[in-house]
Amino acid sequence: MSRTVYVNGDYLPEEDAKISVFDRGFLFADGVYEVTSVLGGKLIDFEGHAVRLERSLAELDMGMPMTRDALLEIHRRLVAENRIEDGMVYLQVTRGAADRDFAYPPEGTAQTVVLFTQSKPGLADSPAARTGIRVATVPDLRWDRRDIKTVQLLYPSMGKMAAKAKGCDDAWMVEDGAITEGTSNNAYIVKDGVIVTRQLGPEILHGITRAAVLRFAREAQMKVEERAFTIEEAQAADEAFVTSATTFVTPVVEIDGVAVGKGAPGPVAQRLREIYLEESRKAGI
Amino acid sequence: MSRTVYVNGDYLPEEDAKISVFDRGFLFADGVYEVTSVLGGKLIDFEGHAVRLERSLAELDMGMPMTRDALLEIHRRLVAENRIEDGMVYLQVTRGAADRDFAYPPEGTAQTVVLFTQSKPGLADSPAARTGIRVATVPDLRWDRRDIKTVQLLYPSMGKMAAKAKGCDDAWMVEDGAITEGTSNNAYIVKDGVIVTRQLGPEILHGITRAAVLRFAREAQMKVEERAFTIEEAQAADEAFVTSATTFVTPVVEIDGVAVGKGAPGPVAQRLREIYLEESRKAGI
Repeated sequence: MSRTVYVNGDYLPEEDAKISVFDRGFLFADGVYEVTSVLGGKLIDFEGHAVRLERSLAELDMGMPMTRDALLEIHRRLVAENRIEDGMVYLQVTRGAADRDFAYPPEGTAQTVVLFTQSKPGLADSPAARTGIRVATVPDLRWDRRDIKTVQLLYPSMGKMAAKAKGCDDAWMVEDGAITEGTSNNAYIVKDGVIVTRQLGPEILHGITRAAVLRFAREAQMKVEERAFTIEEAQAADEAFVTSATTFVTPVVEIDGVAVGKGAPGPVAQRLREIYLEESRKAGI
Repeated sequence: MSRTVYVNGDYLPEEDAKISVFDRGFLFADGVYEVTSVLGGKLIDFEGHAVRLERSLAELDMGMPMTRDALLEIHRRLVAENRIEDGMVYLQVTRGAADRDFAYPPEGTAQTVVLFTQSKPGLADSPAARTGIRVATVPDLRWDRRDIKTVQLLYPSMGKMAAKAKGCDDAWMVEDGAITEGTSNNAYIVKDGVIVTRQLGPEILHGITRAAVLRFAREAQMKVEERAFTIEEAQAADEAFVTSATTFVTPVVEIDGVAVGKGAPGPVAQRLREIYLEESRKAGI
C-alpha cells in the first residue's frame, strides 16, 4: 500500500512524491529535519520538535515555512491517512529550489517542505529495549555545528555501517578522547547511581528526548551530571543507554566488545524508559 | 528557455527534472558530485573529474553508476542540446532512493544520477580575473573528510554568505591557525617567487584544477611548496590566488581587509591563468 506523502502543499502517493533536482537540500544539504514519534496514533512531544525546528532554521537564516499549528495539522493528517498507530513522522525543510550557487537564493524563494510517515508496529516494545544494544566507537568526523539538526547525515550513516561491520548495532562517536553521542541518539552512562551525559553545546544534538528524560530523572530524585565522559569510563560504568525520539530510552550492554555492568539492561535505563513512555503517552497529542 | 536535464536515463525539461523525496542525497547528503567546465563547447579535464568521481564513490563504498564513456556521452549530449559554449556540466551521484534508514539500502539499489548544465558566457574572461577578488577568513567547521567531494556543502555556502556580509567575494577557511582552502576552490600564496599551497590530505579537496596548475607551474620552472600557511603569511605574501574548475586561476587581492602585495592581480597568478586556459583549451574534448 502506498503511503501518502506531503510535498509543498500537496498530499501525494509516495511514487509521485518528488522534488526538483535543483533543490538545495539535494545539492547543498541546505536543510533541516525533525522526526516525531507516534504512539497509539498520537504525536509525542510535537511542541519540542517544532521549537527545535524553528531554532535550526534560524541558525541557518531561515524562517519557519508555516505556523506550528499548520505543521501540526499536516502531521495529523498524514498519521490519519496512513493509519499510523505506532511509528514516526519525518519532516524536512530546505532553502528551496534555485539554480545552483553557493550563495543563498534571493529572499522570497519558496522553501521546500516534505513530510512522510513510517509505520513501526510495536515501536514501544522493541527487542532492542529488552536485550540492549551493542555499540562500537568511531572517531567523530562530523562538522562542528551538530546542534543544528541538518541533513548532513552522511557520516552518522557511515558510522552506523562501520558498527554493523563489527557486528554491533550502532556507533558512539569519539572526539578529543570523549564520547559525543550516538549516530542518531544521545549517549549516557550510569555510575554509582549518577546519570552522566554530555553537556549541551555545538558538539551534540540537543535531543528533545534527552531533555525530557533528564527532567523525569531529576523529578524521580536521580542524580544527573552533564559532562563529557571517555570510552574507558563508559566501559567501567554500571549501565549505559541512549535516547532518541524513536527509540526512547534503549540500554547499551556492550561498548567495543566490553560488557557494561552485567552485560544486560540495567535498572536505571529500564526505569527511565518506563517513565518516559508513560509520560509521553499521557502528553501525546 | 528551459534546459534539458539528465535524470536516471531520461533527458527532461528542467521543470520535470525531479527526484524522489526518499533519495538519500536529499535525506542524508549521501552523494558526491563533480563540476566540469565547458570552454568553446569542449569539456575541460573530463578525465580528471571522472577519476575523482570514482575515488569519491569508492570512499563511500559505492561504485560508478556507468562507464566513463557513458558519462562522457551524457555530458556531450547536454552540452549540445543546451548549446553550451562556455559554462559547466554538473554531475551528482547518490546512493539512490530507499525508505529512510541510517543503514545503507540493500545492494542493488539503483543509484541516482543527475546532470545539468549552466551557461556562463565569457566564463574565461570574468571581471573577477581582471580585478581579483577579496576574501574574508572564517573558521573551517566542515567535516573531516573534505577529500571526498560530497554534497555536504552547507558550511561552504554559509561561509560564502558570511564573506558577502562583510563586503567580500568569498571566504577562506581556517583550521588550527592555517588556511585550508576557499569555499569552492583551493588557496595559494606567492612569496619571493615560490608558490605555496596546502598539501593534499583529508583537510582539503584534491582539486583537479589544482593538480593541473601545479603541473604547469613546475613545467614553467616555478618553485612550488605544498604546505600549510597562516592568514598572516598570506597577508604578507606578494600574491595570492585561488583555483577551481569553473574559475580557473583567479587572483586574490585582499584578505580580511589587508591588501595582498600591491592589492592588484600579480604576475604569477596572471601567467598561470593564461597557461591553464591555453593548455585546457588545447586538451578539451
